[in-house]
Amino acid sequence: MRAVFVVLMLCSVFVFSSATEPRQVRLLPMPASVQMKTGQLVIDSLFSIGINGHSDALLQRAVELFLDNLRRQTGVPRLDMKVTDAAQAKLVVHCERANRAVQELGEDESYSLEISPAGAKLDAVTSLGIMRGLQTFLQLARTTSDGFAVPAIAIQDKPRFPWRGLMIDVGRHFIPLDVLKRNLDGMAAVKLNVFHWHLSENQGFRIESKKFPKLQEMGSDGLYYTQNEVRNLIAYARDRGIRVVPEFDMPGHSTAWFVGYPELASGPGPYQIERKWGVFDPAMDPTQERTYKFLDGFIGEMAKLFPDQYFHIGGDEVDGKQWDANPNIQTFMHAHGLKNNQDLQAYFNTRVQKIVRKHGKTMVGWDEILRPDLPKDIVVQSWRGQDSLAAAAKQGYRGLLSFGYYVDLNWPAARHYAVDPISGAAANLSPEEKQRILGGEACMWSEYVSPENIDSRIWPRTAAIAERLWSRQDVTDVNSMYQGLENVSRWLDWLGLTHNSSYEPMLRRIAGSNDISALRTFTDVVEPVKDYTREEITTVEATSLSPLNRVIDAARPESVTARRFADLVDALIAGRADSEAKQEVRAWLTRWRDNQSNLQPLETQSFLLKEIVPVSQDLAAVATTGLQALDCIDREERAPDAWATQQFALLQQAEKPKAQLLLMVAPPVQRLVEASSGQKAPPPPK
Amino acid sequence: MRAVFVVLMLCSVFVFSSATEPRQVRLLPMPASVQMKTGQLVIDSLFSIGINGHSDALLQRAVELFLDNLRRQTGVPRLDMKVTDAAQAKLVVHCERANRAVQELGEDESYSLEISPAGAKLDAVTSLGIMRGLQTFLQLARTTSDGFAVPAIAIQDKPRFPWRGLMIDVGRHFIPLDVLKRNLDGMAAVKLNVFHWHLSENQGFRIESKKFPKLQEMGSDGLYYTQNEVRNLIAYARDRGIRVVPEFDMPGHSTAWFVGYPELASGPGPYQIERKWGVFDPAMDPTQERTYKFLDGFIGEMAKLFPDQYFHIGGDEVDGKQWDANPNIQTFMHAHGLKNNQDLQAYFNTRVQKIVRKHGKTMVGWDEILRPDLPKDIVVQSWRGQDSLAAAAKQGYRGLLSFGYYVDLNWPAARHYAVDPISGAAANLSPEEKQRILGGEACMWSEYVSPENIDSRIWPRTAAIAERLWSRQDVTDVNSMYQGLENVSRWLDWLGLTHNSSYEPMLRRIAGSNDISALRTFTDVVEPVKDYTREEITTVEATSLSPLNRVIDAARPESVTARRFADLVDALIAGRADSEAKQEVRAWLTRWRDNQSNLQPLETQSFLLKEIVPVSQDLAAVATTGLQALDCIDREERAPDAWATQQFALLQQAEKPKAQLLLMVAPPVQRLVEASSGQKAPPPPK
Repeated sequence: MRAVFVVLMLCSVFVFSSATEPRQVRLLPMPASVQMKTGQLVIDSLFSIGINGHSDALLQRAVELFLDNLRRQTGVPRLDMKVTDAAQAKLVVHCERANRAVQELGEDESYSLEISPAGAKLDAVTSLGIMRGLQTFLQLARTTSDGFAVPAIAIQDKPRFPWRGLMIDVGRHFIPLDVLKRNLDGMAAVKLNVFHWHLSENQGFRIESKKFPKLQEMGSDGLYYTQNEVRNLIAYARDRGIRVVPEFDMPGHSTAWFVGYPELASGPGPYQIERKWGVFDPAMDPTQERTYKFLDGFIGEMAKLFPDQYFHIGGDEVDGKQWDANPNIQTFMHAHGLKNNQDLQAYFNTRVQKIVRKHGKTMVGWDEILRPDLPKDIVVQSWRGQDSLAAAAKQGYRGLLSFGYYVDLNWPAARHYAVDPISGAAANLSPEEKQRILGGEACMWSEYVSPENIDSRIWPRTAAIAERLWSRQDVTDVNSMYQGLENVSRWLDWLGLTHNSSYEPMLRRIAGSNDISALRTFTDVVEPVKDYTREEITTVEATSLSPLNRVIDAARPESVTARRFADLVDALIAGRADSEAKQEVRAWLTRWRDNQSNLQPLETQSFLLKEIVPVSQDLAAVATTGLQALDCIDREERAPDAWATQQFALLQQAEKPKAQLLLMVAPPVQRLVEASSGQKAPPPPK
Repeated sequence: MRAVFVVLMLCSVFVFSSATEPRQVRLLPMPASVQMKTGQLVIDSLFSIGINGHSDALLQRAVELFLDNLRRQTGVPRLDMKVTDAAQAKLVVHCERANRAVQELGEDESYSLEISPAGAKLDAVTSLGIMRGLQTFLQLARTTSDGFAVPAIAIQDKPRFPWRGLMIDVGRHFIPLDVLKRNLDGMAAVKLNVFHWHLSENQGFRIESKKFPKLQEMGSDGLYYTQNEVRNLIAYARDRGIRVVPEFDMPGHSTAWFVGYPELASGPGPYQIERKWGVFDPAMDPTQERTYKFLDGFIGEMAKLFPDQYFHIGGDEVDGKQWDANPNIQTFMHAHGLKNNQDLQAYFNTRVQKIVRKHGKTMVGWDEILRPDLPKDIVVQSWRGQDSLAAAAKQGYRGLLSFGYYVDLNWPAARHYAVDPISGAAANLSPEEKQRILGGEACMWSEYVSPENIDSRIWPRTAAIAERLWSRQDVTDVNSMYQGLENVSRWLDWLGLTHNSSYEPMLRRIAGSNDISALRTFTDVVEPVKDYTREEITTVEATSLSPLNRVIDAARPESVTARRFADLVDALIAGRADSEAKQEVRAWLTRWRDNQSNLQPLETQSFLLKEIVPVSQDLAAVATTGLQALDCIDREERAPDAWATQQFALLQQAEKPKAQLLLMVAPPVQRLVEASSGQKAPPPPK
C-alpha cells in the first residue's frame, strides 16, 4: 500500500476517502499530528485486539472497556470482538511499561496510532497513552458503505497540559454516584484526566468520615457517599486514566461541618445546613489548636482514602465577619502580628499545609491561598484569571486555570474555547515559568443543577475546554470545534450521558402533555441568562429546596438552532447564501412567527409555562420583523428608516431577559434589519 | 366540598376539571371503579405522605420509592416531599396487615384511593395494595395551571387475575441486571406482579451454581448472574410487589447444561453452546438415575436461592431424536411400558415434580408437561391457547395463558389486547374451573433482542397485556387503550426505560450520520415482519453472534405514525375528517413521496442502509399513489379503473416484506385507492 502523505493543516476538518466515498471525521480533541493514508480498516464481528509488550491488569481492563464501547457503537453482541494473540489481532496494542501504582501528574500520555487496511497498531509508553489512543480509535470508527471502518491514518499525539480536569460540586446539590460515573465516561472520551470532587460546602458535607461521623450524619441530609462508594468511584476513574482529587473547602464554605462540630467555628453555634446560595459568614477558627487537631485527624483519614498525591483545601471566599466579631480571634491576631484577615487565613493555610504534607500529600487551593510564606510545591487553582496564574508562576508556584472555564455560567462553548491558560500576562512568562502552568479545570458549580440536568450543563461544552487543554495552542478554529462538538455530543449518548435524552422528558413535564412540538420549537432558541444574572434578576430567592423544573432548567446553555440560524443569516447578509439557505432562514422565521399560536393552548394548562408567555410573544414578534426584513432583501428594496427604528426598539426589548431566558434569535434578526435598512441598531442601553 | 358522583362508563376516557381547565387522564390499567369529584389536590414541595395502621419495612420502602418517583415526575429536589406523621400528611396510607414474608400468589392487592382538594387517603389490606394504589396516584399526577396536582377522585380497584407476569428469556441473549431492573420498574408501573426469569437455554446457562459450577463456567460464555446478583434482583422485585419465578428448561432446551456435564445428555458429547436458533436434539437422559441425582442437587440449590413458591421446569419442545437414537433409552422405555417419547417425558416430569416438591416448591411447566399422572397442584403455562388451558382446568389443573402474549412476534398492542385468558373453550368453563385460570404472562423470547433494543420490544405493548390481566373483562376499547399506552410509554421514560431513547442513537449508527431526519421518517412507518417470518425469509441464517444493528432491529414493533395515519384515512373515507385532518393526510403523503430523495445521500455512505433502498422506493411510490387518490377524492372525481388496477398491483408489491420490513402505510393507501376508484383491491396472493 502506498501511503499518501498529506500533512493536514491543524484545526481544519480533515477528509478521508475510502474506495467509494469521501467522509469527514473531526477528532476532538484534535491530535498533535495527523497524516491521512489511503483505504480503510473494516471493523466487523471478527475484529480483535491483542496486547504485545508490557501487559497488566490496568491495560487489560482498558482493552475490555474499549471493546465494550466498540460493540456498543457497532451493535455487535458481547460474544463478538475478542482479545486475541497480538499475532492475529487486527489492532495491536504495544505498551512499554507499567503506570505508577497510583496515577501521577505528568505521566506519559502520548501515543501513536497507525491504521492501514490490513491492521492497526497503537503504541504508547504507558497504559495511559493506550487509553487515549483507544478513544481516538473509537472516534475514527464510522459506518461506511463497506461496513464499520476506521480510515487508514497515522496519528502522533500527546497532551499540551498534564492536568486537564473537571470539577463537580456535589455540595450544593448532591450528585449520585451513577451520575458521576457517566460523567467520568464523558471525561475519558475527551481525554480529560482529573476529576476534582468538591465534597464539602455550606449546603452539605458529602462524604462518610468514620473518625468524625457527625460530619455526614448531621451535615448532609443523609445525602453522602460511603467510603466504599468513594473507593468504587476512584477505581472506576483509575480504569479510565483519571485521577481523583478531593476538595474539602476550608476555612470558609464550611457551615455543614459545623452542624455536627460547632466547636470548629469562629462564632457561636448552633449551626444548620445552609439552604440559600451565596457566601456565608461561618468560618473555622484558625486560632484554636482543637481546629488543627480535628483537621489532622480528618485529613489523615481522607489522605488514606484518596490515593492521589494532590489534596485540595479550597480556601476561597472567606468574608471574615466571624473573625472580626470574635474577641479571642482579634487578641490572637494582635499577639501574632497578623494585620488582617488575609494574614490570618495565610496563618491557617500554613498550618493546614503542614498537616497535608504530614499525611504525604501536596496541597492545592484556590487563588486566595497564594501567599509567599507557603512552600513552593503547592498548586494554585485560579478562578481569577491568567494574570493571577502568571503572578503565581513568577513566584515559583504551579497553577491551574479555571477562570473562563465555569460551565455553570452558561457561556457558549466558543467563549470557553477562546480562553487559553497561557495568555494575558501568562504569555510573557519564561519557558520555565510557563512549565508551572499545569493546565486547567472546567468547573460545574451546582446551585442550579440536579441529577436530571447536570449532564446538559457539562456537555458538550466541556469538550471544547478539553480540546483547549489537550491540543496545540494554535488549534483555534471555532467552526471546526463546533463540528467536533456535535460528533462528541452524539457519541456521549452511547455512553449513557443524558445531556440530550433528558431534554424532552423535562419539556413534557413542563407542558403537562406529550405533545411538546411547540414548546420544543420555543425552548430550542432560548438560553438561560449568563454569569450570575439568574440570581440578580430573580424575584423569588432560589435555595437548595427550589424545584429545578422550569424552562430555564431545561433550556440548553447554548442553542444549536440559534447558532445555526445566525450563521445562515450572516451568510445571507454577506451574499454567500444559496437559495436553499435563504429558504431555510425564511422557513425558520415562519415557524417561529406561528409558534406562539401553537404554544397558546398549553399555556393555559401548565403553571410552568406561564412565565414564558412574554418570551414566546417576543419570538413571534421578532420572527415577524425578520420576515419583513427578508422580504425587503429579497426584493432588493431598502427598508424605510422609520420601520427600522421601530424594529430596533422592538428587538432591544426582546433581547432583555424574561423568565431568566435570553431569546437567542433576536441578535441575528437585528442584523437582518440592519442589512435591509442600511441602518445601524442603536447600542443597547447601559 | 360537594362530591359529584359520576359513575364513569368503563373503558371510556374520563375527563376531570379543575377550576380552570378540563384535563384528560387515562389510567392504565383501568381501575375497577372510578368516581370523579370536583377540584384537585395540589402537589408542591410541601407534599407529604404518612402511614397509619400497620407499618413495616416493606411498606416504608414502598413509600420512599413512591416519593422518589413523584420527585422525579415533578422535578423537586430530594430534600423535599417528606414522610411525616399521618396526622399532618397530605396523603395518608393505611394498611391493615403485613404481607407474607415471601410474596404469595393470590395475596390481596386491592386498594381504595380517595382524593379531595384537602388530602388523599389510600387504603389497602396489605402493602401490595398500597403499592398498586401508589402507582395509580402517580399516573394521576399532572402539570396543571395551578401547579402539579391530582384530581379529586374515588377509586376502588382490584386485579382480575392474581398472576400477571412478564417472562424474559435471558438464555438466547444475556440481559444484564440493570436492564432487568429497569424492566421491573416498568412492570410495577402497570401493576404486573410476576417476573418469570427464563434462565437456561441451548444458547446459555445464566446463573451461578455453586454445586455444579461447570454449568456457568462452561455454559455461559462468562455471561451469567452471580447468586448475590440474583438475591439483589429478587429483593428489588420484592420492593415493587413482584414475585420472581425462575425457569430451568428441561429435559430439552438444555444444550448449555451439557457443555459442562455431558453425562446428563441422552447422546454422546462433547457439547458446545448453541449459536443458532431453533429446536435442537440434545435432551436430558430420563432413564439414568444420575440425571435425577444431579437435578435433586441443582433444584435443591436453586429452591433455596429463589424464595417463591413456584418453580418452572420448562418442559417444552423436546424433539426426541436423541431418545430415539439411544438403545439404552429404548430398552428402558420398553421395560417400563413407555409407549412413546411423550410417555417418557411424562415419566421424567413425574420424577422431577417429586424433586421439586421435595424442596418445597410447586412445579410450573409449559403445555407439554400436562399429563393426567401429574398431581393437581402443578401449574400449566399455555403457549398453545385458551383451549389447552380449558382442557387443563377441566382436569383440575391451574393454568396461565401466554398464547397471544408473545411480544417477540411484533404484533400490534391491539392484537395482544384482544386475547382474553377466559375466552374460546375457557369461556365455557364452570366458575370453579375458571378460578383455575390464574392469569397470564407476556413473553419476551430473545433471539432478536439486545440490551439496546429489548425495552422497545417489551414496551409499551406489554402494558396492554397488563391491562387485560388486571382490568375487568369488559374493558376492551382499543382507542382508549392506545391513549393510555401513550401516557404509559412516556411515563416509562422517567423510570429509565430505553424503549424511546434508544431509537435515535440506533438510527444514527445506521445512517452513519447525526442527520437522521430522512431515515427517521422512513423507519417511523415500517415494522419488523411478524411471527416467525424473520427466520423464514432470511437469506443469511441469524445466530447469537449476529449483530442486531439493522433497521429491523431499530424499527418499532408497532408504528404509531402508521396507526395514526390509518385512523386519519379511515375518517377521511368515512367523511368524518375535517379540513385539518385532510391536510394532515396530504402532508404525510407529500413527505413520504419526497423522502427517498432525502434518504438517497445516506444510502451511499452506509452498508446498513443498502437493504432498505427498495422499501424506501416503495414508500415514495405508495405515497405518490396516495396523493393521486386524494386528488380524485378532493375533486370528487372517480379514479379510472385502469389506474386503480395498476395501483393495486403496485400496492400488493409494496406490501410484501423487504429487508424483513413491512411498509405499514401501504394498507391505508390501498383503502384510499379503493375509495377514489370505487374498486375493491384483489385479495393478496396465497
